[in-house]
Parts: sequence; structure tokens; C-alpha cells
Amino acid sequence: MQIIRTIKDMQVLSRKLRAGHKTIGIVPTMGAFHEGHLSLIRSSKNENDITVVTIFVNPIQFGPSEDFSKYPRDIEGDLSKLSSLGPDIVFLPDDKEMYPNGFAAAVNIGSIGGILCGAARPGHFNGVATVVVKLFNIVMPDNGYFGQKDFQQTVILKKIVTDLDYNVNIIVCPTVREHDGLAMSSRNTYLDHEERKAAPILYKALKLGEEFILSNSEVDASYIKEQIKKYIISEPLANIDYIEIVSVTHLDKVVKIDFPVAICIAVKIGKTRLIDNIIVDRK
Amino acid sequence: MQIIRTIKDMQVLSRKLRAGHKTIGIVPTMGAFHEGHLSLIRSSKNENDITVVTIFVNPIQFGPSEDFSKYPRDIEGDLSKLSSLGPDIVFLPDDKEMYPNGFAAAVNIGSIGGILCGAARPGHFNGVATVVVKLFNIVMPDNGYFGQKDFQQTVILKKIVTDLDYNVNIIVCPTVREHDGLAMSSRNTYLDHEERKAAPILYKALKLGEEFILSNSEVDASYIKEQIKKYIISEPLANIDYIEIVSVTHLDKVVKIDFPVAICIAVKIGKTRLIDNIIVDRK
Repeated sequence: MQIIRTIKDMQVLSRKLRAGHKTIGIVPTMGAFHEGHLSLIRSSKNENDITVVTIFVNPIQFGPSEDFSKYPRDIEGDLSKLSSLGPDIVFLPDDKEMYPNGFAAAVNIGSIGGILCGAARPGHFNGVATVVVKLFNIVMPDNGYFGQKDFQQTVILKKIVTDLDYNVNIIVCPTVREHDGLAMSSRNTYLDHEERKAAPILYKALKLGEEFILSNSEVDASYIKEQIKKYIISEPLANIDYIEIVSVTHLDKVVKIDFPVAICIAVKIGKTRLIDNIIVDRK
Repeated sequence: MQIIRTIKDMQVLSRKLRAGHKTIGIVPTMGAFHEGHLSLIRSSKNENDITVVTIFVNPIQFGPSEDFSKYPRDIEGDLSKLSSLGPDIVFLPDDKEMYPNGFAAAVNIGSIGGILCGAARPGHFNGVATVVVKLFNIVMPDNGYFGQKDFQQTVILKKIVTDLDYNVNIIVCPTVREHDGLAMSSRNTYLDHEERKAAPILYKALKLGEEFILSNSEVDASYIKEQIKKYIISEPLANIDYIEIVSVTHLDKVVKIDFPVAICIAVKIGKTRLIDNIIVDRK
């Protein structure tokens, strides 16, 4: 497992690998690994000659009042987890390497970045798009691995790949969950004991929505959203940001269910904003 | 000389060339070839295994009141000129191929895109940056060839390469001029007989500015700009858009001459907006 810290070194290596006919899988992460990250790395290892894991807490995808400075960081723990999994390369740049003084370019992904999580986090998805474009240019991967938990992010990255003509497949891997259904997230460490007990309400609410959709032949999205809302507000620690039912390709709001759809929710549990989603398709 | 019209076909070929250890030079053009374009193609052929010439009149770099629809197009003439030069590949996509319905991504290059030509042409350089990023992703070149006549464009593309981590060298080739000094441009065809006679005033004014700078040990940029202005307004058909003296790396306005500097001007001759520039360095 080789650790690379500069863009130049990574580019030289990527070019050599490409010229050597190796397929490259990239797993872009912000570190603080949980089983979700590890599952992405395993998928990449299964499907590519070379797996590059990147660890970089990307400042430009955090808003000014968000948790950039307190976002969990555990490089030693991460590297120890990686060493047992054995990706080929860990790309570990620092902020100055990625955003030197005078950095000015940005990738803008249009209106799809302003809905759902983008409404509460203006600029977030442009920050994600910009860093992923940089990482794609540096690593020149064939395949990029992302978790379904960040569903809007995966749709947006597919759009970036299409619109900007990257020759990269966006591979979306299933959300990994705790035994009680809570989607794994580095931010779960923010939850105190009571909040952690309340947090599975997100997944339970999604399963309730799924049940409503599958048990009826045709039904109003607004009715289903109302049922999900009622269920979540029964939990005193929960504070709903959004509940939406959207198309899986363009995230358009759905009025009548037209399979497949994604139910996407964002809920604050105490001060911690959690997101989750479920894709519901015809049985 | 192979003509390729789809992104997919071009990407398959680029990937094959890269895996075959071929170096690739790209010459992005909007067609309507003059000697300036041909000199870029010759440079690329000299310095790369494979030269890809792209011809695409990029709609998103034209403003709503600009000359997109009447921009000169002469594909047959262009292909005939190319066949005697012999680039390896001509990439010739149409608008739908490059910007299908729903296209939404954009590359934003920040404040450097809002000065000089960017002040008169809002959005122009973001349109340029977006199409060049697409072309780089499709063709995967080692070297990109651009003319110095579009000096701001070359500085901006170097910035895009740096900020977004493209492994591409931006090669700037000298402006090719008519016998009377007029910089070659596809837009020169808009000039009528009288305007064509007046148009060399741009280059003459730049040479005058150069003379002022080189003949004085230290001098105010504003004084030199004033001399250039006086000279240009002596031509009744000329209408000045801007006269600026800027640093060659970041296009910062210069107060006192600090070598090297670029004198950049944009002047309307009749209805046709022409640009030109000259880089002045210590003798």
C-alpha cells in the first residue's frame, strides 16, 4: 500500500498505470472510515486492477456555519483499517496541495445542486463536483465508487460524468447499515446516547413509506410523504429538514408514483443532520 | 485523416492511443481556418505522435446578442485545407452531441473571466472553459495548442489546467499576421473594404505602445495607454472597447511597467470587434 501526498506524484503514477493497461478504481472519501467506506473499497478491489483510495476532507463542500473544523478525522485509524484491506494506493493530499493560494476554478452543476440537500447546503454540491473533477483528473480512473446513502451526490456525479464527458463509470454501492437500520455515516459519532437511540427513525420511516407505495397500486406522493412526516414527528428529538419522493434519474419531484422512485429524507436528531434514502421499485 | 463525429468513438480511440504510449496534441478550433490555425496544427504535428484537430462552433461562449449564427462556417474548405496538412484525426461533433437536452454543468473560472474581453462578453470565458474541459476529457491530450491572439483565453486555460489538475501542457503559439500587421482572425471576413484598410491600426497602436515602453527606463502604464488611445481615435472607423497593460501571468493591471507585460486591446472597426495584444519584455 503506497501513500502518495502530491498531485504530481499521483499523476505520474496514474499515467504509468494507464499506459500499462491497468484498470483503475477510485474510492473518494473524507476518511473517518466505517463499514460503508470499506465496502466501497472491497468492490473496487474486486472490479479493478488497481484501487486508489483518496482521503481528503474537502473544505469547499462545507458551508461557513457547517462542521468542517469538527468533522471527524482519524488518519491513523483509517490507515490501519486500510492496511488490512490492502488497496494499492492511498492518495492523501493536504488543503494547500488541493487548493493553493489563488485557486479560482469551480464546477457548477446547475439546478440539481439546489434541491434536497442543496437547499439547506448552498454550494455544497458544486464543492463536491469540483473536488471529484480534480480527483478524476489526477487519478484518471475507469470506475468511481460511491455509497447510495449520498443518493443526490451519486445522481449529480453521474450528471457531471455525462455533461463533461468523463470516461468514468459511477458505481453506486448499497448503503451499509447498523443492526438497527441506521445508515452508517461518519457523522453518527456526533450523536449522544439518547440521540443514537432515536436515530433509526429515519430508516424506519423510509421502510414505512416503501410499504405504503408497494401495498397500493397507485397513490399520491403527497399522501405518502404525509404519513412519513407523521411518523417522524412522533420522535421528540427529530426535526425534519425534508421528505421528498423523486425520480431516480433526475431527482424530479414525483406527484403520482411512477416506478422506480427514491424516497429521500434529511432529519436533524438533536444538532446532527442525518440523511437517508430508499429506492422503491415494482416488486 | 480520420473524421470522428461522436464523443464515444473519440474516447475509445483516445484511450487506445494512450494505452499505445502515443502522445496526443489537440488543436481546438471553431473552423473557418486561416494561417493562424494552420500554424497551430503544424506545431502539434511537430511535437506529438498524434494530432487531433477539433472543429466546433461552441454556442455557449457566445452571448445572446453576439455573432453565433453568422460566425463564419466553411467545413468543406476547412477539410480541404486539413487534408494537405494531414492531422491524424478531425473531431467534428455537432451541437446535440456536445450539448444534449438537459445539459447543465459549467466550469466557472472566477474573476479572471470578468475582466478585459470578459467585461464586454459576460459568460464568454466560462463557455470557453467548459468546452475545453469537455474536449480535454474526450481527447485526453498531452498538449493543447492555442494562439496568442486570444491572450486572455490562454491565461485562463492555463489556470483551468492548474486549478482542475489537468495533465495537459497549454502551448501558446505566436499570432500570425497579414502583411500589414493585422492579426489573422476568422472575424476579419466581416470587414468591408474601408474597414479592412483601417484594421491594422490595432497592431500599429500596440507597436507604438511597445516603443514607448522600451524607450523609457520606467514609465506610467496610464501614460502609455493614453498615447495608444490618442493614436487609435485618430482613425474615424475605430471605436475603443479597452486598452490595458497587464501582467502576463494573472492579467493584473500594471501601474508601473514591470517586465514582462502584455498590452491588450479590443477595438471595434465598424461593427466588427477585433482584439490584439503584444507581450513586451526587457530587450
